[in-house]
Amino acid sequence: MSIDEKINIGELKQSLLEGNIKALSKSITLVESSSYKHFEMAQVLINSIMPQTGKSVRIGITGIPGAGKSTFIESFGLLLLEKGHKVAVLAVDPSSSISRGSILGDKTRMEKLSRHKNCFIRPSPSGGSLGGVANKTRESILICEAAGYDRILVESMGVGQSEVELRTMVDFLLLLLIPGSGDELQGLKKGIVEIADLIAINKSEGENKDRAKLTAIEYSSALKYLNQFTEGWKVKVKMCSAITGEGLMEILQSLEEFEKFTKSEKIFERNRNEQLSLWMDKIFMENLKRKYLSSPDIKNYRSELKAKVITNELSPSAAAELLMKRIVGD
Amino acid sequence: MSIDEKINIGELKQSLLEGNIKALSKSITLVESSSYKHFEMAQVLINSIMPQTGKSVRIGITGIPGAGKSTFIESFGLLLLEKGHKVAVLAVDPSSSISRGSILGDKTRMEKLSRHKNCFIRPSPSGGSLGGVANKTRESILICEAAGYDRILVESMGVGQSEVELRTMVDFLLLLLIPGSGDELQGLKKGIVEIADLIAINKSEGENKDRAKLTAIEYSSALKYLNQFTEGWKVKVKMCSAITGEGLMEILQSLEEFEKFTKSEKIFERNRNEQLSLWMDKIFMENLKRKYLSSPDIKNYRSELKAKVITNELSPSAAAELLMKRIVGD
Repeated sequence: MSIDEKINIGELKQSLLEGNIKALSKSITLVESSSYKHFEMAQVLINSIMPQTGKSVRIGITGIPGAGKSTFIESFGLLLLEKGHKVAVLAVDPSSSISRGSILGDKTRMEKLSRHKNCFIRPSPSGGSLGGVANKTRESILICEAAGYDRILVESMGVGQSEVELRTMVDFLLLLLIPGSGDELQGLKKGIVEIADLIAINKSEGENKDRAKLTAIEYSSALKYLNQFTEGWKVKVKMCSAITGEGLMEILQSLEEFEKFTKSEKIFERNRNEQLSLWMDKIFMENLKRKYLSSPDIKNYRSELKAKVITNELSPSAAAELLMKRIVGD
Repeated sequence: MSIDEKINIGELKQSLLEGNIKALSKSITLVESSSYKHFEMAQVLINSIMPQTGKSVRIGITGIPGAGKSTFIESFGLLLLEKGHKVAVLAVDPSSSISRGSILGDKTRMEKLSRHKNCFIRPSPSGGSLGGVANKTRESILICEAAGYDRILVESMGVGQSEVELRTMVDFLLLLLIPGSGDELQGLKKGIVEIADLIAINKSEGENKDRAKLTAIEYSSALKYLNQFTEGWKVKVKMCSAITGEGLMEILQSLEEFEKFTKSEKIFERNRNEQLSLWMDKIFMENLKRKYLSSPDIKNYRSELKAKVITNELSPSAAAELLMKRIVGD
């Protein structure tokens, strides 16, 4: 890393810690860049701001398409701003090419929120990634915290694995649903109900109210069959309307209860530590993979071996051994 | 590997393929041995029998403690034997030290089954493992198949992760429950209902029947909120009694339906291939980890780094980089 880059990073870090919006955007752009040089600079930046990170509540928001996530984030975000918080809105999305449009769309729909001086909204990272899109979001969270944002809303663009990824980077996960019977909700991804800390039936307004109540009851009973994700925390089902604002305060109260409870029980801290530790392992194994499995020669050999395993010519461990031998010798 | 070992393996393989019980037990003992020499011999054996494996239906059986798994396996196994199948009963258990007793107990409780010439019951592997207990079970499955067993019952000793492991090594997963309301069933592990292909309410006999019906209804409705695990297969809830034999035939029919459907749709084959491919990757990554992370020096360095990550002195990726550098240089 050459000296002038170091200086840039130093200056960038300074204005980032002062809460400068330009510096904030620039830092995230650095993180999201697919240029290796930028990636390395970003790593230096992230590493240098670590002591200034972690002092926020990270709130994941996920839900089925059409659950009204962006409207909810607009209304709920404004509520947090009224409470004096600095709010950042990020998105995690494994297939970001699709969603970039959508979340830019969201941004324009989050009008009041995006105009507020204490709110920062960032479209989801686009295109390819060094170290995985989820890592970009994790790093963006740290950057926002370093810039003084104390409530980070991370929206899942809800494609397959993204909720599971989201769960590993937030303290609190809100599942947003709409009134409707179980059958209509088959769209729900496997296990998603079980990783939520709170379920909110959005659009519980007007003639939807009765169906919303029914849905709430159904989910409350379904929850009996599922374990809570966060140790000792009982998942509740709330009704709300992002449009009328009804029920949002209760959701905020539930979130504050959650923070109070998990912090007093040191569960909050333990989850954070676990997430960091897992994150480190994940990156390390990715690096190990990249170092040893990325060459075309090895890739081809690996698929050859897999083909032989699938046709029962080789046992999985024999194949794994052969691959290892090709890589490290002996 | 010296020549005489090769010869032993050759002979062992021969009598194994002839269905010799002694050879079968010996082969599994080899797989389960924690001596590296035996481990290597086992790998040679497994690799050599691969072409004779895969021609069975692998049936996972899991459930809450007291669901009556062993009684169910006894009755259901006898039903399979009547149908002319050769039945093997294995167990997967991450914490096998505990369960060895229990499944040996099972064996004595599976009296009729264990006395039948076409049935082979194997206690779960005991103590430490080379390559993980789950791999031992996977390899034991292959060995039983090579010996001509065409219905493999794999029982989960139900400690935390074992069901998830079990799911990756069987074609069909049966979840055994007992009559009782949701609240009583909190013992259910997270996500377990979602990885089942069939749910059976066991002990649906005598005065339990009404509660059993209720439980069946509750689970049927809970299933509305969950996706099926096996593509295109609708999970059903059945009532049965392993003691009276009631309902067992319906469960067998459901299993046969499942086999017919998944085989005609090539889903059966695809799942098998996926399992083998994942198994190979798992072993490879384990070997890679063992090769690069097992030295005490590296272990200590890794924990040092993790401590720094958790206290925000280092970013996860910086820590991962440092660990990588220590291992491979550059």
